Amino acid sequence: MKHTKIAELLKSDQFSQEFTAKGWVRAFRSNRFIALNDGSTINNLQCVLDFENTPEEVLKEINIGAAVAITGILKESEGKGQRVEIEVNTIEILGKADPEEVKKTILSPKRHTLEKLREQAHLRVRTNTFSAVMRLRSQLSFAVHQYFNQNGFNYVNTPIITGSDAEGAGEMFKVTNFDLNNPPKNEDGSINYKEDFFGKESNLTVSGQLEGETYALGLGQIYTFGPTFRAENSNTSRHLAEFWMIEPEVAFCDLEGNMDLAEDFIKYVLNHVLQNCDDDLAFLENRVIQEDKSKPQAERAPMALRDKLRFIVDNNFKRVSYTEAIDILKNSKPNKKKKFNYIIEEWGADLQSEHERYLVEKHFNCPVILFDYPADIKAFYMRLNEDGKTVRAMDILFPGIGEIVGGSQREERLDVLQDKMKELGVDEKELWWYLDTRRFGTCVHSGFGLGFERLVLFATGMTNIRDVIPYPRTPKNAEF
Amino acid sequence: MKHTKIAELLKSDQFSQEFTAKGWVRAFRSNRFIALNDGSTINNLQCVLDFENTPEEVLKEINIGAAVAITGILKESEGKGQRVEIEVNTIEILGKADPEEVKKTILSPKRHTLEKLREQAHLRVRTNTFSAVMRLRSQLSFAVHQYFNQNGFNYVNTPIITGSDAEGAGEMFKVTNFDLNNPPKNEDGSINYKEDFFGKESNLTVSGQLEGETYALGLGQIYTFGPTFRAENSNTSRHLAEFWMIEPEVAFCDLEGNMDLAEDFIKYVLNHVLQNCDDDLAFLENRVIQEDKSKPQAERAPMALRDKLRFIVDNNFKRVSYTEAIDILKNSKPNKKKKFNYIIEEWGADLQSEHERYLVEKHFNCPVILFDYPADIKAFYMRLNEDGKTVRAMDILFPGIGEIVGGSQREERLDVLQDKMKELGVDEKELWWYLDTRRFGTCVHSGFGLGFERLVLFATGMTNIRDVIPYPRTPKNAEF
Repeated sequence: MKHTKIAELLKSDQFSQEFTAKGWVRAFRSNRFIALNDGSTINNLQCVLDFENTPEEVLKEINIGAAVAITGILKESEGKGQRVEIEVNTIEILGKADPEEVKKTILSPKRHTLEKLREQAHLRVRTNTFSAVMRLRSQLSFAVHQYFNQNGFNYVNTPIITGSDAEGAGEMFKVTNFDLNNPPKNEDGSINYKEDFFGKESNLTVSGQLEGETYALGLGQIYTFGPTFRAENSNTSRHLAEFWMIEPEVAFCDLEGNMDLAEDFIKYVLNHVLQNCDDDLAFLENRVIQEDKSKPQAERAPMALRDKLRFIVDNNFKRVSYTEAIDILKNSKPNKKKKFNYIIEEWGADLQSEHERYLVEKHFNCPVILFDYPADIKAFYMRLNEDGKTVRAMDILFPGIGEIVGGSQREERLDVLQDKMKELGVDEKELWWYLDTRRFGTCVHSGFGLGFERLVLFATGMTNIRDVIPYPRTPKNAEF
Repeated sequence: MKHTKIAELLKSDQFSQEFTAKGWVRAFRSNRFIALNDGSTINNLQCVLDFENTPEEVLKEINIGAAVAITGILKESEGKGQRVEIEVNTIEILGKADPEEVKKTILSPKRHTLEKLREQAHLRVRTNTFSAVMRLRSQLSFAVHQYFNQNGFNYVNTPIITGSDAEGAGEMFKVTNFDLNNPPKNEDGSINYKEDFFGKESNLTVSGQLEGETYALGLGQIYTFGPTFRAENSNTSRHLAEFWMIEPEVAFCDLEGNMDLAEDFIKYVLNHVLQNCDDDLAFLENRVIQEDKSKPQAERAPMALRDKLRFIVDNNFKRVSYTEAIDILKNSKPNKKKKFNYIIEEWGADLQSEHERYLVEKHFNCPVILFDYPADIKAFYMRLNEDGKTVRAMDILFPGIGEIVGGSQREERLDVLQDKMKELGVDEKELWWYLDTRRFGTCVHSGFGLGFERLVLFATGMTNIRDVIPYPRTPKNAEF
């Protein structure tokens, strides 16, 4: 008999009909009540067993973690906590789970730390928290594609392996086919990369932006959504060596259009999960509330998870120039009282996380878009303003997360771009193709990058970025 | 004034209204007719210039490849080939394109070979062929996500960098943070990978399947859609070192369910492009017809592109066991007349591309799903049939493409799996986490992998896989 997903059964009102459900036992009470989960929803299906007519050897194998098939009649439930239940006619054990073995794993029914769950990342998706996070991640991904598709953007797969390391967004991983014990060498003893698979040094991409620009200047509006890499020894709760990034790029779009796009986009995807993931959000919201009980008041989340998401969706992001932000920070209490680790003394200072958090969480109390940064602290491809000292850059700062978006209008003028590259020592020969886009029909264009895991962090209320990606890659960890 | 996309203008009937369009000049005839393209559609907007009132210095810069902004009145067109046109009031040159420089590139208005276009992959998306291919690729991607989302699958990002190389699907690229000139060594002279970024040897993934299984056995239905890699020196029109793969995995699903899923999925995504990409398909269809004119009859495409796609959507795939296929092949003309390079002599032979093509293109003349292959020629994780000699594997073969899908029901029985791994020398310690899924609530489950670029090849009628991905990575080539 074809089985029905538990998510459907829980919504069904086809009472007195027979259904089959398949899933994993989450709990078994009183030799009678099985809580069955199949991953289609955070909620379990209550299956009521006629234990007197169930053979002893079957009862013995209804253990937490076991896979079972249940056939029975859908009924309105008299018990608390569920609307419907299944009165079991037959139960089949599909895959056992030895209770002694389960005890050693995170499947055992007790509180496990998130660290412990990470060590068993292959099993953690069977817990409520991680199944909720991963369903939410999936829905957020879909919302990303849907937003861009509906708005006429083309999805572009920029290369993962790249022969150019010119962007300088961060340390890159090398990709090679060499036997590292014995790589071919040139006469002068250096490595002979001509012999390597790609015939040159190659790396894992840190950003698809430059390739994305070449496509935007043909297709008009494009976005990437793929893995990017940083070989940085950052063992923090906000950094991964491998993470997914979304990078739209739009021809004939200036910085204002870019800010409009980023804000509209973020609101759309967060609204999508509010509309489509309420059960998971409710669970995660409650999880944060429970976690916060053991924390001092000041460290607790200021808003319930869904309220926080609704607040983002319903309110305009505050747009503030870097220059205004510096004025605010210079005159702020923590600056005057020297509470910041880095005291803001003058225009030109690079903003630290503590400054961003002050602006977002204390001063404005809403998402902030900072724009028009000093040229000296930003990348070579950002468009120089008429003042000659600021560039058309923008960062979006989120409460609790910090920078979630970094973008800019791109320098479309060939001569200005070349001057800047010379100044910063970016190799023109490496980027001949990038410069070509400024030679042939260049135009105003803009784009941004959004670190997808930071968005998932924000939308789930989780606090460690390792807990919002299935198998996190961090220094000294590529397990599974 | 805000500009309007050309795709919208071409559909508009807001005649006599003023609009602004921005794009690139594709042609300029008689000092009067500009064909403007902005990437939103394959079709150009005809812009009619009042050249007597256009300054000479502007006229001089309306060159192929230049970016321009045009403001004017939308009118019904009297000319052939378009329904509407813009009567230009003002034209602004946004970005020039020096005709002498353009001549050196593929932007110049003459026939360029696909090889030439590949050398200028940063510009080729500005040609009709490549913009059509890339819009189609984007729509196919979206259809993939939409299909799985609508059917309750969760999108899972399995890791790109992996510490396990156990699947053995092919040669892997190494990922390292070492200075290759001087990697740290152990006392015995071997490389000390503990010092590397991840603390162990790490590689680029060849498949997300094994990690995908761990997620399917928690979330029920998942799919991956991400880049995968092969460090194989295959310089063919069907192989890339970096390509995108779609891998669904479903708990409580057997091989029949897997075949149903794959067939339904492929029909859905091809129907999506038939419904949404008719302009691009019509262009590509005509392109193939033109290309075929210079070929002998036997090498021409047997069906027009859209007819071919409709044929797939409307007809059932033929399901044939390996054993039946061997019988057909043994008794086939080319086998008897020894026309095959590899003569099929007995059951157990691995099928070559020539055999697959015979079955698909000559014998059945439709897509074919071959299933129940000999265990000896398939991977360790495929479920052994009761006959003890075949496994629940299936490949889908497409006309002109060959294998487009490879999948199987997975071996869910711990002991059988362990025996098979021992037999094939797959390290149990490496895959402890994979085996855990068979220890705790194992169940029947199945999945498949579909090479996305092969699907794009099929849907676009292109013949070289390098021409359906923006920046192809192949032996000795990681340019851009």
